[in-house]
Amino acid sequence: MKKVLVIQGPNLNMLGKREPAIYGSDTLEDFNQRMEQAAYVHRLSLTFFQSNHEGEIIDRLHQAMGKYDGIIINPGAFTHYSYAIADAIAAISIPTIEVHISNIYKREAFRQHSVIAAVAIGQISGLGIYGYLAAISYFDAYFQK
Amino acid sequence: MKKVLVIQGPNLNMLGKREPAIYGSDTLEDFNQRMEQAAYVHRLSLTFFQSNHEGEIIDRLHQAMGKYDGIIINPGAFTHYSYAIADAIAAISIPTIEVHISNIYKREAFRQHSVIAAVAIGQISGLGIYGYLAAISYFDAYFQK
Amino acid sequence: MKKVLVIQGPNLNMLGKREPAIYGSDTLEDFNQRMEQAAYVHRLSLTFFQSNHEGEIIDRLHQAMGKYDGIIINPGAFTHYSYAIADAIAAISIPTIEVHISNIYKREAFRQHSVIAAVAIGQISGLGIYGYLAAISYFDAYFQK
Amino acid sequence: MKKVLVIQGPNLNMLGKREPAIYGSDTLEDFNQRMEQAAYVHRLSLTFFQSNHEGEIIDRLHQAMGKYDGIIINPGAFTHYSYAIADAIAAISIPTIEVHISNIYKREAFRQHSVIAAVAIGQISGLGIYGYLAAISYFDAYFQK
Amino acid sequence: MKKVLVIQGPNLNMLGKREPAIYGSDTLEDFNQRMEQAAYVHRLSLTFFQSNHEGEIIDRLHQAMGKYDGIIINPGAFTHYSYAIADAIAAISIPTIEVHISNIYKREAFRQHSVIAAVAIGQISGLGIYGYLAAISYFDAYFQK
Amino acid sequence: MKKVLVIQGPNLNMLGKREPAIYGSDTLEDFNQRMEQAAYVHRLSLTFFQSNHEGEIIDRLHQAMGKYDGIIINPGAFTHYSYAIADAIAAISIPTIEVHISNIYKREAFRQHSVIAAVAIGQISGLGIYGYLAAISYFDAYFQK
Amino acid sequence: MKKVLVIQGPNLNMLGKREPAIYGSDTLEDFNQRMEQAAYVHRLSLTFFQSNHEGEIIDRLHQAMGKYDGIIINPGAFTHYSYAIADAIAAISIPTIEVHISNIYKREAFRQHSVIAAVAIGQISGLGIYGYLAAISYFDAYFQK
Amino acid sequence: MKKVLVIQGPNLNMLGKREPAIYGSDTLEDFNQRMEQAAYVHRLSLTFFQSNHEGEIIDRLHQAMGKYDGIIINPGAFTHYSYAIADAIAAISIPTIEVHISNIYKREAFRQHSVIAAVAIGQISGLGIYGYLAAISYFDAYFQK
Amino acid sequence: MKKVLVIQGPNLNMLGKREPAIYGSDTLEDFNQRMEQAAYVHRLSLTFFQSNHEGEIIDRLHQAMGKYDGIIINPGAFTHYSYAIADAIAAISIPTIEVHISNIYKREAFRQHSVIAAVAIGQISGLGIYGYLAAISYFDAYFQK
Amino acid sequence: MKKVLVIQGPNLNMLGKREPAIYGSDTLEDFNQRMEQAAYVHRLSLTFFQSNHEGEIIDRLHQAMGKYDGIIINPGAFTHYSYAIADAIAAISIPTIEVHISNIYKREAFRQHSVIAAVAIGQISGLGIYGYLAAISYFDAYFQK
Amino acid sequence: MKKVLVIQGPNLNMLGKREPAIYGSDTLEDFNQRMEQAAYVHRLSLTFFQSNHEGEIIDRLHQAMGKYDGIIINPGAFTHYSYAIADAIAAISIPTIEVHISNIYKREAFRQHSVIAAVAIGQISGLGIYGYLAAISYFDAYFQK
Amino acid sequence: MKKVLVIQGPNLNMLGKREPAIYGSDTLEDFNQRMEQAAYVHRLSLTFFQSNHEGEIIDRLHQAMGKYDGIIINPGAFTHYSYAIADAIAAISIPTIEVHISNIYKREAFRQHSVIAAVAIGQISGLGIYGYLAAISYFDAYFQK
Repeated sequence: MKKVLVIQGPNLNMLGKREPAIYGSDTLEDFNQRMEQAAYVHRLSLTFFQSNHEGEIIDRLHQAMGKYDGIIINPGAFTHYSYAIADAIAAISIPTIEVHISNIYKREAFRQHSVIAAVAIGQISGLGIYGYLAAISYFDAYFQK
Repeated sequence: MKKVLVIQGPNLNMLGKREPAIYGSDTLEDFNQRMEQAAYVHRLSLTFFQSNHEGEIIDRLHQAMGKYDGIIINPGAFTHYSYAIADAIAAISIPTIEVHISNIYKREAFRQHSVIAAVAIGQISGLGIYGYLAAISYFDAYFQK
Repeated sequence: MKKVLVIQGPNLNMLGKREPAIYGSDTLEDFNQRMEQAAYVHRLSLTFFQSNHEGEIIDRLHQAMGKYDGIIINPGAFTHYSYAIADAIAAISIPTIEVHISNIYKREAFRQHSVIAAVAIGQISGLGIYGYLAAISYFDAYFQK
Repeated sequence: MKKVLVIQGPNLNMLGKREPAIYGSDTLEDFNQRMEQAAYVHRLSLTFFQSNHEGEIIDRLHQAMGKYDGIIINPGAFTHYSYAIADAIAAISIPTIEVHISNIYKREAFRQHSVIAAVAIGQISGLGIYGYLAAISYFDAYFQK
Repeated sequence: MKKVLVIQGPNLNMLGKREPAIYGSDTLEDFNQRMEQAAYVHRLSLTFFQSNHEGEIIDRLHQAMGKYDGIIINPGAFTHYSYAIADAIAAISIPTIEVHISNIYKREAFRQHSVIAAVAIGQISGLGIYGYLAAISYFDAYFQK
Repeated sequence: MKKVLVIQGPNLNMLGKREPAIYGSDTLEDFNQRMEQAAYVHRLSLTFFQSNHEGEIIDRLHQAMGKYDGIIINPGAFTHYSYAIADAIAAISIPTIEVHISNIYKREAFRQHSVIAAVAIGQISGLGIYGYLAAISYFDAYFQK
Repeated sequence: MKKVLVIQGPNLNMLGKREPAIYGSDTLEDFNQRMEQAAYVHRLSLTFFQSNHEGEIIDRLHQAMGKYDGIIINPGAFTHYSYAIADAIAAISIPTIEVHISNIYKREAFRQHSVIAAVAIGQISGLGIYGYLAAISYFDAYFQK
Repeated sequence: MKKVLVIQGPNLNMLGKREPAIYGSDTLEDFNQRMEQAAYVHRLSLTFFQSNHEGEIIDRLHQAMGKYDGIIINPGAFTHYSYAIADAIAAISIPTIEVHISNIYKREAFRQHSVIAAVAIGQISGLGIYGYLAAISYFDAYFQK
Repeated sequence: MKKVLVIQGPNLNMLGKREPAIYGSDTLEDFNQRMEQAAYVHRLSLTFFQSNHEGEIIDRLHQAMGKYDGIIINPGAFTHYSYAIADAIAAISIPTIEVHISNIYKREAFRQHSVIAAVAIGQISGLGIYGYLAAISYFDAYFQK
Repeated sequence: MKKVLVIQGPNLNMLGKREPAIYGSDTLEDFNQRMEQAAYVHRLSLTFFQSNHEGEIIDRLHQAMGKYDGIIINPGAFTHYSYAIADAIAAISIPTIEVHISNIYKREAFRQHSVIAAVAIGQISGLGIYGYLAAISYFDAYFQK
Repeated sequence: MKKVLVIQGPNLNMLGKREPAIYGSDTLEDFNQRMEQAAYVHRLSLTFFQSNHEGEIIDRLHQAMGKYDGIIINPGAFTHYSYAIADAIAAISIPTIEVHISNIYKREAFRQHSVIAAVAIGQISGLGIYGYLAAISYFDAYFQK
Repeated sequence: MKKVLVIQGPNLNMLGKREPAIYGSDTLEDFNQRMEQAAYVHRLSLTFFQSNHEGEIIDRLHQAMGKYDGIIINPGAFTHYSYAIADAIAAISIPTIEVHISNIYKREAFRQHSVIAAVAIGQISGLGIYGYLAAISYFDAYFQK
């Protein structure tokens, strides 16, 4: 059974409590439950990790090496400046998909540049929980290639 | 049964014949077939439209008003300069998802800015055919809300 | 009797159906009727042309050569990138006035640069239907000079 | 009878004496006379004010509050940097139209950005005296709405 | 008794009458009264000066030399372009605090650069009347050093 | 009794030991003592928190939700790039004031842009310890509104 | 006998009628005749195509695949923004030379950037009809390699 | 006898009292006296005018029309933003030399762009009083041409 | 015996495992061993510290104050945005050399700007392990001055 | 017999020895021989000059005045910064064609701007030796006009 | 007797032969003669040097050390990019005045930035031969201080 | 015995005589002597070359081909604009290290971009003579690989 690590960056622990006009009212736990259901369908094993610490995310990425087959990451605001996380993704050579809950291209100018995108397979933005589910579905197909 | 219009922009008729290192060897017909299968599962009706003419795409968008429930658009190179297509999407008020086969954030600088993204619900980039399938799956859920 | 060609660019056929908060609820037909009334007063002959195709607008401009004494153009979103339309206006040497229904200087940054303005006599922005009427009135005076 | 204040900014007192290739040979008095005639037709009352002093224009705008129904302003070179005049227009909430005699989009780069445009209803550029007349005609219609 | 000059720039005479959503409903007189109370507590003598004329503010700054111990200035829109006022502050060598009623960093891009800040001791933005009171309190402490 | 959390960002623990020409010779403890005195006068309860870790500051902000009535934050160098801290402040909806000891507008170019300012009520820069005291005094008034 | 497709972009049908100071007084037919003569010498077969429609040029490029050995294209104003034409040239893998009649580096700033150049073999600018003839001569040599 | 108007812009009345490290310790009166001596030698008549008000400088320039043969202007900080003064100089068509006491190219970035230079005959920067004397000497020769 | 602290930033623990085409196949331990040998020759004492946490690197720099005579730092991706680490280096006043294994000027644009360089004595880039050895050798000489 | 001077700029003496992937394996002598053959056909007399010294190229251009009827120049890297060579070409008023062996628009960003192009008749880029031959052929026709 | 070295940069040997609309019809020899006359009056000794070679100008500047009391330099096009000449001027610590015959602020954008100005005492632009004479007169006064 | 060419660019002959605050008081001869000693230890043969002429440096680089095993270059101010020297280094394919005596990242903005760095193995900046010694030591190791 293929294993996928789901990394949620800074402030995503506030999901459902924070700016619902932008992020909706579902909590991170709701999100995880929906992903678990989808993973069950696709026979994937998921591990969830959330941190507001850039260094912890980098450490976690390093530890993933040789242990996970895919990574789904929502880097939160780190999307826009953490070259260190981008380097960590490049270093571990695990296929990675970048997900954003809101459409970052509709928001402030600074949110429209991702320093992570160039080291990911692809990016999904604006589809809410469905962005994560699409990533899970993608990995199912990707692992069967 | 909900109806979704799939619009493929310039040069996407060359899919499978054009730069396979970037776009893969599947043709547009292969893509459409995969989408049809997914639409069948999700009980959606799909209509396909491809054009290399900006004006035809705008006309097609206008005609979609009141006839379709969702739009999936890969605007090809128009992504980067066709404010006229963006205005057409805004004008018709049909939920629209922007899809790119390749990861546009790994390519030339000019490909990293979309003038369409701000009027779409969201954007999926780099997941090949799976980007379109994710959009279909998204609309299924979206219509059930 | 002097003849004036009125060209309406992409999405202007959606007038009255599209984003009324920005463009008002009058349709293109309502606009044309108002212009006809004004033209009657000023003893000008008007021809109306709308297209969502850049190439058709260029073709129409070429055909106007030697047939029209003035042009009123609302290039819609082409305002911001169609150097080809600007070249066509420069090529035919017919006095041309650029009109925008909404105040483009109050909207998105990309709307605040016109590639057409430098080849037109002048520009009117933000006055709704009255912008067109002012252009008609201007041509009346211009032709009497 | 509705009242409109016509404000002419710096160097417009030199009209007719200054760079006729750009601004024509009519003097400010000629302009005012033409406007008076048009105002008579439209049953509007006009007040003229010209100043080369930014502060005087701001003071005049403040005094207009509650006394005038519309403002026509040609801010001259202040167009390009007087955020203070823009703030004054915003402060008094009187509908304002920005007029430029020459086509500012055909001239030096610095003349192609107006800091006033975003607080005005609209802008007319390049139509000479007819720009002012169009503004008068616009107000007539505007007041009848 | 130490003396502080309070200079209010363009449009601040409109306080309470102008865009209350941004600036609140207190008038300049209300502001002055609150400052007087605070100055009384801190045993400072205040002089108030408001002008919409850049030149008058420069003249007033020059006259302050040798007569005042501190300056509190809200340059209004001059904040963003009056290098002449900045030079005047630098010329007279009186400690100066720049105050803005609204948070200029939440507003239009042009309001986010102050040409005055580099010649002031410090800047207070967004605290309404309390920004002025904080400046008064600062001067009390500053003069006791 | 209202509670205010005072957050000091990276390198502020070096206060008094670090570049005294810029930051003065008072230590962070001296600063805290002065703030305590002021808080006593204003009947506010203060909690102090210093960290060089962006993640710890974010965690601390999240924990503040529902526990504090106001936040005073000097984000140190995080001011210029930590969109993650800005998001945390926006997420928790507690009124926040940004304070800088030195006048950041007199220093290197990179220090003149704050990514935090747009989510704060206001910003105080260059007033040393008095900037913090002004923030305390502001909250006293703010809570009484 | 090798076959070369000559594509003329928007407004080139106006050649000889349009701005002769820039483009000379020869018509497109004159140009074609000169090219035919040169092609006869070099034993190449030429096909001419002119269009003001971006979409038609893209369609024509696609149809050229497998039918032509070389392409000479003067994209007119499309040079500066049609990424869709650039993609079409890249897609068909036929050696392509970009030609401009006037020296685009002596004209307006926007004319000094070609989005086509990076997908062409080379570019010839400013040599009038001789630019086309040089391209023909180049293909003769190129096909003999 | 030819007449030259010497205009000194904002803060130049503070000469000798203001930042002597940059501007030296001579007062404006000292400067005028030195210029008078030079004018006597060159048989020119000088008139001196200093103002901190942009509007007054514009008015003075207008009044100079037909009365003066040359203008020497040190626009002070207006150098960097007063397009209105530049327009006034262009309007009156009197040969004008721009003088700066300090070398503006050694100072802050904003001082390195003059909006006046393009309408002046020439510019002299960094030579202190000798810059004015050079301008006087230049006019003597210029008038003899 | 002089003491030098060697700080390795984010992802440098992956050395030898990560992108060997860029960073070579030696591990961080290999690097440390080579440095130890060189330090032995130069009679310097080395301490090694690696972290992926910006905050830990700042804490470590603070603790170095008064304990180390020199610092060699490879800030990894923090080089490009951690103003907080730059401030920490400036705060502790220990001579610091910035080292990069690869030539950062041959790589992505974002890697070509270091926010650390301005607070270091110097920078060595592209020399692999020899960059570190050169820094050690430099400190030997520096301490003997 | 008309005379043409062929100037080859810095590093072109390395042709055939230098980066053959970009410049091919023909030497400068091979190039000259091909040009001589073409010149013989066109009855032109060629003189060849190569230098790595900007000053020598300028001197040679000056000496060409009145002696040559045309100039073909490949300025090598001087293309991108030698305004002095551009001034020399403008000064001597001899028709000049700029040639680049490789397609400079496919290479590094700095190679995509020519400071020479604006003073040349035209530019040929990317056609290898055929670019020079096209220039020779152009001059033949040009001299017959 | 004080000695001044006059350095004329690239293309200034073409003076009088080159673009007289910009530079006039006097030759460099005419210029030198006028300067000699002025130097005689001011009892200065002049040495003239012209070169089109950046390296020769640098060598000449180095040799001037200890031999000349002042330098007048017209760096021609080197003004805009020769940091090496700027470094040479800074290295030799001889007071230097930069002169331009034409008003560089009225010409192409690239001519409006001088890399020399920051190391010179001052700059004179647009006064033709009188710019040099003013520099000579300045040195006379400067040496008497 | 491996041979290394040491190239010193413009103004480095002034070392020890020029701005000692930046470059120290050692002369170029002192530098060469120190390098000779280091080369002796590393059994390398050094050749020294200094020139203020860009062309001479290019010529010297060309002549080095096949004669030297490594190059150490301090391009002085040419660092920032001599694409011609960069091309020469790329052309000869000899491993090259770029050295700067001062820390160019602490100085003027223009000094912070090297056009040479991308064609060198690496860059050493700010270490004075030790930068050169480190380069020598690097080559010793490099040649033994």
